[in-house]
Amino acid sequence: MSAMTHKNTPSQSWDKSNPREVRRACRELGYTGYTAGLAPGHVQANICILPKAWADDFLLFCQRNPKPCPLISRSEVGDPRLPALAKDLDIRTDVPRYHIFRDGKFVEEVTDITSYWQDDLVTFALGCSFSFEEALQEAGIPLPFLEKNSVAGVYVSKLPTESAGPYKAPLVVTMRAFKPADAIRAIQITSRFPNVHGAPVHIGSPEQIGVDLADRYQNVGDGTVGEGEIPLFWACGLTPQLAVMSAKPPLCITHAPSSMLVTDLSNASLAML
Amino acid sequence: MSAMTHKNTPSQSWDKSNPREVRRACRELGYTGYTAGLAPGHVQANICILPKAWADDFLLFCQRNPKPCPLISRSEVGDPRLPALAKDLDIRTDVPRYHIFRDGKFVEEVTDITSYWQDDLVTFALGCSFSFEEALQEAGIPLPFLEKNSVAGVYVSKLPTESAGPYKAPLVVTMRAFKPADAIRAIQITSRFPNVHGAPVHIGSPEQIGVDLADRYQNVGDGTVGEGEIPLFWACGLTPQLAVMSAKPPLCITHAPSSMLVTDLSNASLAML
Repeated sequence: MSAMTHKNTPSQSWDKSNPREVRRACRELGYTGYTAGLAPGHVQANICILPKAWADDFLLFCQRNPKPCPLISRSEVGDPRLPALAKDLDIRTDVPRYHIFRDGKFVEEVTDITSYWQDDLVTFALGCSFSFEEALQEAGIPLPFLEKNSVAGVYVSKLPTESAGPYKAPLVVTMRAFKPADAIRAIQITSRFPNVHGAPVHIGSPEQIGVDLADRYQNVGDGTVGEGEIPLFWACGLTPQLAVMSAKPPLCITHAPSSMLVTDLSNASLAML
Repeated sequence: MSAMTHKNTPSQSWDKSNPREVRRACRELGYTGYTAGLAPGHVQANICILPKAWADDFLLFCQRNPKPCPLISRSEVGDPRLPALAKDLDIRTDVPRYHIFRDGKFVEEVTDITSYWQDDLVTFALGCSFSFEEALQEAGIPLPFLEKNSVAGVYVSKLPTESAGPYKAPLVVTMRAFKPADAIRAIQITSRFPNVHGAPVHIGSPEQIGVDLADRYQNVGDGTVGEGEIPLFWACGLTPQLAVMSAKPPLCITHAPSSMLVTDLSNASLAML
């Protein structure tokens, strides 16, 4: 065990289906991997931690742009807990990996942010599309990128968001392609999940929203549209990260991509109807 | 006043917003026109009347194909009333115009079917897309064909239906075209109305379902797809009429196209959620 971290070696076994165990693995057992497939049925969240002086406008940005920024919890100022998401949760240790941004620039990836914690920090937890992807799979709708161990293709669109204070960003979108009947079902199913991006923002021609399918953001995800398929575009949780990069707060801490906060909330609890 | 009918002249005034008044106008005041725009907010129904010996398989056809045949009421055998739709309703007189089919062939249009009534006749009332078109308009989604006093374009697709006894038909569909964001909203809104055809059955490329947009069924409706628009296709209540024409019952009576049965049910009462 390193003196620099209170995480143990990853050799100990833990129950990957239990969200509390996933968080314990991050906190105590040195788990630093991806969270896709862990604690099935439970909400995973995008994390954004900001100083209080920068948090109020960020909250307003979320309120004004609920599709890319579906806020499911905001902590008390300086409090590392998020009791609405899990009683035992400590945001300083319970995410596999974190990204540290200073003045809007990425500076470092870490596995624990205890040494970065400040009394003025506020944590925002935003819903993530893993929840509705689970619902799509349960409905028998193919998501072939998952079989390739990839994620949905990510694009910076020309669709606007509504700014709030220093937070400004174009809408980032994810693309998933379906046969037409599955596209209709996918719209129905994701409409039931407004807290995890909800219904798509666009269907069909990518150029209508300024997207070139070959030009993925940071080469993230799979941009394949098969024969006879139609592309659907959802608002993406990377939008607020672009807004933070544009606002340039002195400190911002996020989860590392695909290494989310695993919560005790059930995906089903987020569904309307 | 003709001796051949108990309908009066159409000169008397009546309240076009009241479904009971619309039926009275058909029954007593000689109204023989279209029903679009009458009694706003109330369900209008497709009508199919068959002898009992032919009714059981038709019921099965409806049960197996709820999207084109959303059954909202079936009468008792020989009973011209449909009390679930309106207490005063008499199906022999309360539709503006009727079409008479013998052995699957259209023979005549009439404004009253009292002289055709038999003790073994069964009435089926099926939901119609007017209900969801009202919901689309209320949501601010343009339906430009309505401004042209037209209806949605009607097409015989290559999509199958499930047969029942002698009733067999390809799926007839209606096409409405939207900008992408409105297409997504239209799928959400019509999904709330499973009793009036529900969600679309297809989106995008017409040829995938064997449809040529220039080739409308009996030249009915508007097949225009504007620049940047995407066509959506819904199951259509003409499907059971094609099934009846293929089954060739000795007698079948339907409403005349666009001259529906106006009921007391509110469109809102059909909406899920």
